Amino acid sequence: RLNHVAIAVPDLAEAMDKYRVTLGATVTDAADLPEHGVTVAFVDLPNTKVELIHPLGNESPIRAFLDKSPAGGIHHICYEVDDIDAALAHAQAEGATLRICQACNVHGSHPHPEGWVAFLDDEAGGIEIEFMQVYTPEQLKEYEDLKGI
Amino acid sequence: RLNHVAIAVPDLAEAMDKYRVTLGATVTDAADLPEHGVTVAFVDLPNTKVELIHPLGNESPIRAFLDKSPAGGIHHICYEVDDIDAALAHAQAEGATLRICQACNVHGSHPHPEGWVAFLDDEAGGIEIEFMQVYTPEQLKEYEDLKGI
Repeated sequence: RLNHVAIAVPDLAEAMDKYRVTLGATVTDAADLPEHGVTVAFVDLPNTKVELIHPLGNESPIRAFLDKSPAGGIHHICYEVDDIDAALAHAQAEGATLRICQACNVHGSHPHPEGWVAFLDDEAGGIEIEFMQVYTPEQLKEYEDLKGI
Repeated sequence: RLNHVAIAVPDLAEAMDKYRVTLGATVTDAADLPEHGVTVAFVDLPNTKVELIHPLGNESPIRAFLDKSPAGGIHHICYEVDDIDAALAHAQAEGATLRICQACNVHGSHPHPEGWVAFLDDEAGGIEIEFMQVYTPEQLKEYEDLKGI
């Protein structure tokens, strides 16, 4: 299942407005994630979502991306997996290599707001791939309690 | 609704293999579309699909894309709309500009294998957007009869 497509944008308000207007889509309010160095908004589609990402702070991992591609572009595509450790072991056994999570500076599986995630480098078509094992409701509560959300 | 994300790839067989293996996904057989100058294969996901596109023939519109981005990359994102003429009129009234369909050399709405489509230029995040009004079963039959499919 495709969880989301993430697009880095140089002007978040303009991008949110374009998606609202051009697509007539529902766009969530922008949310700052200082721990990840990004501000994000989601374009909610009936079957999946598009994540608009903008740098937050000078250390943001998105700055280097926009320095290379000032107009913005696809940052990654996130696919849901049932068991992230098994999925990573399988992909690595077949030659895929892990990439560091630019937001968390962690290799391999680690917790994000919606689930355990990991990033893969060097995939077909030059597209970075994120795997996500979505939290169960209990795991989500545990994560949010830990982070004081 | 997100109909598909299209990724241009320099090596179709390798890309199909990677998506089969890395994601454990179902990938359709490659299909040549000589009229559009492309060979395509679809990664079938439970909620949407990823279209892998590779140039077919010397005049393929995908060649210029791969000349610029040899590793491949996102070619466009396709969103479904209920009424393509109304959606285009609305988007254009709000400042969006139409882009020529590189495969068909047509501006604005025109028939493709799955529905009427049109391409928009200059959208947020530098991502080309395709609108698709998916055929009803009757319209699909009409298109296929016309094309002798």
